[in-house]
Amino acid sequence: MIVCGTAILMLPVATDGPGSASFMQALFTATSAVCIVGLIVVDTPGYWSTFGEVAIMGLFQVGGFGIMTMSSLLVVLISRRMNLRSRLTAAAETKSLGLGDVRRVVFGVAKLTAAFEITVAAILTTRLLIAYDEPLSRALYLGTFHAVSAFNNAGFSLYSDSLMRFVTDPWICIPIAVAAFCGGIGFPVLLELRRQFWQPRSWSMHTKLTVSMSVLLFVFGSWFIMAAEWRNEATLGPLDVRGKLLAGFFHGVMPRSTGFNTLDVEQMREATWLGNDVLMFIGAGSAGTGGGIKVTTFALLFFVIYAELRGEPRVNIFDRQVGGRVQRQALTVALLTVALVVVPTVIILFVTGDAFKLDRVLFEVISAACTVGLSTGITAELPEGIQGLLVVLMYVGRLGPITLGTALALRQRTRLYELPEGRPIIG
Amino acid sequence: MIVCGTAILMLPVATDGPGSASFMQALFTATSAVCIVGLIVVDTPGYWSTFGEVAIMGLFQVGGFGIMTMSSLLVVLISRRMNLRSRLTAAAETKSLGLGDVRRVVFGVAKLTAAFEITVAAILTTRLLIAYDEPLSRALYLGTFHAVSAFNNAGFSLYSDSLMRFVTDPWICIPIAVAAFCGGIGFPVLLELRRQFWQPRSWSMHTKLTVSMSVLLFVFGSWFIMAAEWRNEATLGPLDVRGKLLAGFFHGVMPRSTGFNTLDVEQMREATWLGNDVLMFIGAGSAGTGGGIKVTTFALLFFVIYAELRGEPRVNIFDRQVGGRVQRQALTVALLTVALVVVPTVIILFVTGDAFKLDRVLFEVISAACTVGLSTGITAELPEGIQGLLVVLMYVGRLGPITLGTALALRQRTRLYELPEGRPIIG
Ligand SMILES: [K+]
Ligand SMILES: [K+]
Repeated sequence: MIVCGTAILMLPVATDGPGSASFMQALFTATSAVCIVGLIVVDTPGYWSTFGEVAIMGLFQVGGFGIMTMSSLLVVLISRRMNLRSRLTAAAETKSLGLGDVRRVVFGVAKLTAAFEITVAAILTTRLLIAYDEPLSRALYLGTFHAVSAFNNAGFSLYSDSLMRFVTDPWICIPIAVAAFCGGIGFPVLLELRRQFWQPRSWSMHTKLTVSMSVLLFVFGSWFIMAAEWRNEATLGPLDVRGKLLAGFFHGVMPRSTGFNTLDVEQMREATWLGNDVLMFIGAGSAGTGGGIKVTTFALLFFVIYAELRGEPRVNIFDRQVGGRVQRQALTVALLTVALVVVPTVIILFVTGDAFKLDRVLFEVISAACTVGLSTGITAELPEGIQGLLVVLMYVGRLGPITLGTALALRQRTRLYELPEGRPIIG
Repeated sequence: MIVCGTAILMLPVATDGPGSASFMQALFTATSAVCIVGLIVVDTPGYWSTFGEVAIMGLFQVGGFGIMTMSSLLVVLISRRMNLRSRLTAAAETKSLGLGDVRRVVFGVAKLTAAFEITVAAILTTRLLIAYDEPLSRALYLGTFHAVSAFNNAGFSLYSDSLMRFVTDPWICIPIAVAAFCGGIGFPVLLELRRQFWQPRSWSMHTKLTVSMSVLLFVFGSWFIMAAEWRNEATLGPLDVRGKLLAGFFHGVMPRSTGFNTLDVEQMREATWLGNDVLMFIGAGSAGTGGGIKVTTFALLFFVIYAELRGEPRVNIFDRQVGGRVQRQALTVALLTVALVVVPTVIILFVTGDAFKLDRVLFEVISAACTVGLSTGITAELPEGIQGLLVVLMYVGRLGPITLGTALALRQRTRLYELPEGRPIIG
């Protein structure tokens, strides 16, 4: 996929100017699109031709669809491999995942994707036609591109300033935010919500966790950005209260992990960057188009700590308990992601010789590894070798957690003998 | 203790100049001393009188002794509360901890402390007498103060530049580094090493883990600082190779978590700061005078991930297995410490309105929470409210992990019923 994309983007016809894109520009853009990250080294509308833009849209549509389908299928696979006992006790849990059929998953994802993208594209196109006097074909093109980009959490935009010109326009911001939120929440949850939206009590634990954490993080993220930026003249400051609220809510969704921005990320405060770092790290829902360690992983760690502090031998969430292996998987995913962020950050600071500061480098690395795509503006300035590192990061960040989560769940060894217990001192 | 210390330091006789120290200056210094952190808001030799300096030495001696005794006693308490079965299987583990006697622990710690401090003080005094032409009483005073400060990992110095003037003097640097390393490795390990230093095979798992991790981190830390700073004209650059090696090794020990420096921390590179952040976070050994999450906690998490990646149902370290509860304790200590670092960093960036950047604030917060005492030089510039926050951080960072670790180990609830298992999707 990435190889194909790179080859296509290196064709002379893909760029606007004379000549063709360099290998690194094409590779970076193709990876960013396929892994639905959204980081860019060249300005999307300014550098690429319409052919190039459509190719990018194709790449992130296929990338988003692929990731959603594949991870949903892996979930099905895992639930099948569970042994009979856990199948019985977990039966209530897996009912939304028990489709058991590749075709049904693929069609299900395709139908949902189409439904969301067509609806949002229609709204955006109408708005661009009416309020911005775009000709129909242009409005349709822009509306479709951004609707696809939003639902797949790709974060690519056909405006050089992302969506900053629409900062106070609810008819643009709200549909995009809703599409991004729903795309990020994950296919299994969407499916279950469609089936029984009005019976929250009968939702599986996974759905309950995902929905409640997503809403919590949205509320917290929006509150945080409004609190931090309310008086920042370069971001929220000049807007009226309605505009501030809209932009705040929009940026409450975007760090997890869409990557559009209606405010200038480069001008945000240090505290906002760090707050965004945390949100980007947590990310969106499992088996969706978002990235990060996923909200369920984060919530689970939270409940593990809570149980430990209360001295509970079991970790209970809602009316279910969580097994030790699942806890260990969550720990593994979270800590390996920490390593995936810290090690490249050290490397980049090390080799760039202090040309960049920790705040921006950390932001950029988390944005790449958690496939967000927000940027403090240094991606294009980084040396080619570092851009290559970001390419690897985007790839590992995209495929790592899923393959890891699946591999961990499927590999269950048993030991023939047990060692005596040791007890190192903790803390 | 902290209250007493604050009161003493507020006496007019404690300061050199006219008038007395402000409440925040006294509180900060007393907390920093009792919690053996070493962060300062006023220059130790320049601001405090000899009376004040001796008071500070008294505070960090009592603080270090207290923490070592208390945590060792808590370890004994934990090993007693273990039920019979785990006592039997863990018998080999707890032999170094099974003193079972408050008096023996207190005397043991006192004897070890005295032995280290007197030896190091003697070496330092001799060196200061011979090579620096200090009068005997002054050399004795300086030697004693720094020996006590080193073994207790306090990091307070009677030179305004910490130990930067001794950067190439192995007769000063090596004894101090050895004392700091041994103080940080923890009483249970020291005791076991004294008993059977030459039979590493019979060491308990805790001792094996602590020693191997400490050595590994020392080697890695030294290598990292030398690699990053080798050509930095403000730190290692001007020294000859011998000086570079000595300073590199010295700074391989200091971030975990002594807090002396022979190089100018403020002039170090961004990458070095971040590398030091990691080392400070990991910290030293359990039941010693160091801080951080402790090397055993870090190593345990590493082994948990390794076991998970290999699909092993058990976590085996050397020839012992580690129970699920201990794993959860390690996870809890590590993640709560992450929270203890991230939340105050966000708060500080938030309220200081971008006067400080992430790199320095993060360094300072980790330094306080992990009781290290290295500083990029912003502590004294922070507003009083933030200094108050650092006081709380030092206190929580000092007592938190121990009390937490103990409380977690002692609280073992059992449930009368079990809930069915749920299976959220991870990653
Ligand atoms: K994205
Ligand atoms: K210290």
